[in-house]
Amino acid sequence: MRASRYLLPVLKESPQEASIASHQLMLRSGMIRQLASGIYNWLPLGKRVLDNIANIVKEEMDSADAQEILMPTMQPAKLWEESGRGNYGKETLNAVDRHKNALIYGPTNEEVVTDLFRNTVRSYKELPLNLYHVQWKFRDEIRPRFGVMRGREFLMKDAYSFDTDEEAARESYDNMYRAYLRIFRRLGLTAIPFTAKTGQIGGNMSHEFQVVASTGESEIFYDPAFEKELRKKEFNIEKLRSLYSAADEMHDPDKAPEECKSARGIEVGHIFYLGTKYSQPMGANIQHSDGSVAPVHMGCYGIGISRLIGAIIESSHDKDGIIWPESVTPFHVGLINIRPGHEQCDKACEDIYANLQAAGISTLYDDRNESAGAKFAAMALIGLPWQLAIGPRGIGSGLVELKNRKSGQKEELSIESAMTRILS
Amino acid sequence: MRASRYLLPVLKESPQEASIASHQLMLRSGMIRQLASGIYNWLPLGKRVLDNIANIVKEEMDSADAQEILMPTMQPAKLWEESGRGNYGKETLNAVDRHKNALIYGPTNEEVVTDLFRNTVRSYKELPLNLYHVQWKFRDEIRPRFGVMRGREFLMKDAYSFDTDEEAARESYDNMYRAYLRIFRRLGLTAIPFTAKTGQIGGNMSHEFQVVASTGESEIFYDPAFEKELRKKEFNIEKLRSLYSAADEMHDPDKAPEECKSARGIEVGHIFYLGTKYSQPMGANIQHSDGSVAPVHMGCYGIGISRLIGAIIESSHDKDGIIWPESVTPFHVGLINIRPGHEQCDKACEDIYANLQAAGISTLYDDRNESAGAKFAAMALIGLPWQLAIGPRGIGSGLVELKNRKSGQKEELSIESAMTRILS
Repeated sequence: MRASRYLLPVLKESPQEASIASHQLMLRSGMIRQLASGIYNWLPLGKRVLDNIANIVKEEMDSADAQEILMPTMQPAKLWEESGRGNYGKETLNAVDRHKNALIYGPTNEEVVTDLFRNTVRSYKELPLNLYHVQWKFRDEIRPRFGVMRGREFLMKDAYSFDTDEEAARESYDNMYRAYLRIFRRLGLTAIPFTAKTGQIGGNMSHEFQVVASTGESEIFYDPAFEKELRKKEFNIEKLRSLYSAADEMHDPDKAPEECKSARGIEVGHIFYLGTKYSQPMGANIQHSDGSVAPVHMGCYGIGISRLIGAIIESSHDKDGIIWPESVTPFHVGLINIRPGHEQCDKACEDIYANLQAAGISTLYDDRNESAGAKFAAMALIGLPWQLAIGPRGIGSGLVELKNRKSGQKEELSIESAMTRILS
Repeated sequence: MRASRYLLPVLKESPQEASIASHQLMLRSGMIRQLASGIYNWLPLGKRVLDNIANIVKEEMDSADAQEILMPTMQPAKLWEESGRGNYGKETLNAVDRHKNALIYGPTNEEVVTDLFRNTVRSYKELPLNLYHVQWKFRDEIRPRFGVMRGREFLMKDAYSFDTDEEAARESYDNMYRAYLRIFRRLGLTAIPFTAKTGQIGGNMSHEFQVVASTGESEIFYDPAFEKELRKKEFNIEKLRSLYSAADEMHDPDKAPEECKSARGIEVGHIFYLGTKYSQPMGANIQHSDGSVAPVHMGCYGIGISRLIGAIIESSHDKDGIIWPESVTPFHVGLINIRPGHEQCDKACEDIYANLQAAGISTLYDDRNESAGAKFAAMALIGLPWQLAIGPRGIGSGLVELKNRKSGQKEELSIESAMTRILS
């Protein structure tokens, strides 16, 4: 993509509305713009990151045998009466259609998916079943803040498992627990699992996953052994569950190990074993092999896709800007033409740009008529893993400058060596 | 995908709620289920088709130099006051948030994108610019019907072009006109362009694209020469615009050519040259090269993604079910194991399934314990291009049956020949 033809409104200064790093950096790098309190437009750069994260989540859900569906954003309010939840409290966004039917903008989808299940599945033979979707949700927060970290309209992946009995449902739960650990690891995050309260969703077992960041909303306490366990190829669930972790008032200093760490955490995922909390009142039954009919056992599993972007930036940035993990970066290489109009610079840049594209390496080519300083600052701000600068001095002797955003290491190299480094 | 582990609730009978073929077939093939009037859940099979269509639209928008963004579903009502539209009439779905701010579920996005533009773009140097998104819309139809063809919550691609003056804006318009013709051709549709009224969107030039189908809502009249012109590699816009086409009351028999065809049409796309209708009242100005400041010239371009599925099925089905074009089919091959549990059948199916997957051919493998008749009927209903049946009689001599859904042609072949045919 040529920066000259790309909507990338970077800002030198942090807008006043933003108080934390991720919010400031997402505004400054031209990823998002606020439309209304807690409601954001996603500009091209932000949309790419959102898609990258959603795709990783979808791939891991698919490999965990979940099936992608799509439920609508607007739900009939009467389903919430059936389940007994009534509504989602003051965070519910209500609407009434022209025929006076009460609708709510889905803050979560237990009712809708339970309704879908009871209308389509009858027999134990069709289980286990895990349905997920990636869809916008609305929760009318009293004080939306921190940009996409606590927005009102936000993108969430929510999955729902259906099993014949509690034992099978707990297997489905563990299956999702492992999938979540894989997802967060692929996103470059250390997300520690905590036993959690079940709150408005309900059920009797729950874990949340928290990313350590100084701006986190919860105080968290955890055994530092997690950090090693979460990097292992195969996760040992028993081991993980035996390690101490507790958030906020669930912390008990008497039970915590000596080496227990204390930090702030950002919640990025939450899973619940629901049992028959929704299937019982809504009559979502299945026929068992012995002919008996009973409510299906459910679990639900949420990941905040848009919120994850905030969490990733909170845990990976420096004073100059964002430092994207390879897995979610909007482009892999930022190619800087230091002197557009200089024949050798232009030719080298066009060649490199064409070669990178041919090799399938996503590249943002800064071909704009801006100062070198402004271009380097913008590139550092948007945080692509590799920055390749072509200037009139070096190119005369066939040299370019390659910088690694994370390590900060700069090297002057031949074009071939730079390409090899990027492709390796 | 193994059908035994796939949520595919096919129905033998047409539900009463459905009166036209596409609606009946989408329900029967387990693509969708209604949640509320005009609001649908997309099941796994339907979601795949929705994604395939959205991806084709995105690819063609990207190659036409449009940039993908994502605007939220909920919009501040006050933007509609600024533009002078007020609202979208009785089809507007209104909501009031907890702080008493009026929100509307976007039925279209001219106001939001114009607001985004005025906050991010200043200079003629940043033009031309074309921003698009694929997002859910809500229009509170008084009588939702025909399934996803006239739903209330529906998926739309809408693009917005920004140019310095009318001449440039008309070039952007023609660029989209051509992109639309390419999109519909890739979807296997003959979509005829018509001069159209501008209605609630406004502006002073507009074309709509209509697919011929007996269940169409408009009466259309067109020169049959369109059919040939729309298949040509390069579209000749001047030639296309010189051909006669008119919908409903815009038809003038005195101007129509003798060979003029009359049919019913389904609108699948609509493009508008807006001029400064939105930029003027909303103050979306740009600075020109001479330093002067003036409202930007806009165009807007919509395609109904979910509606397109209905249009494709209306124009491509038979008494047995859907006939998917290759470009949007949910799977390319339906593999039928006629006798699960029969050792040779199971082994051949597993081998073929693995080989098709390795070759990147999406395959639905019907491994269920159902009668052969039920499996053939389900496969015809869901309409995959190729159907490959493995039964105990043929497999003894290494033969399988390959059927082409569109031509109906059946052949008994060796496994190798069948694979070659599918891969060619």
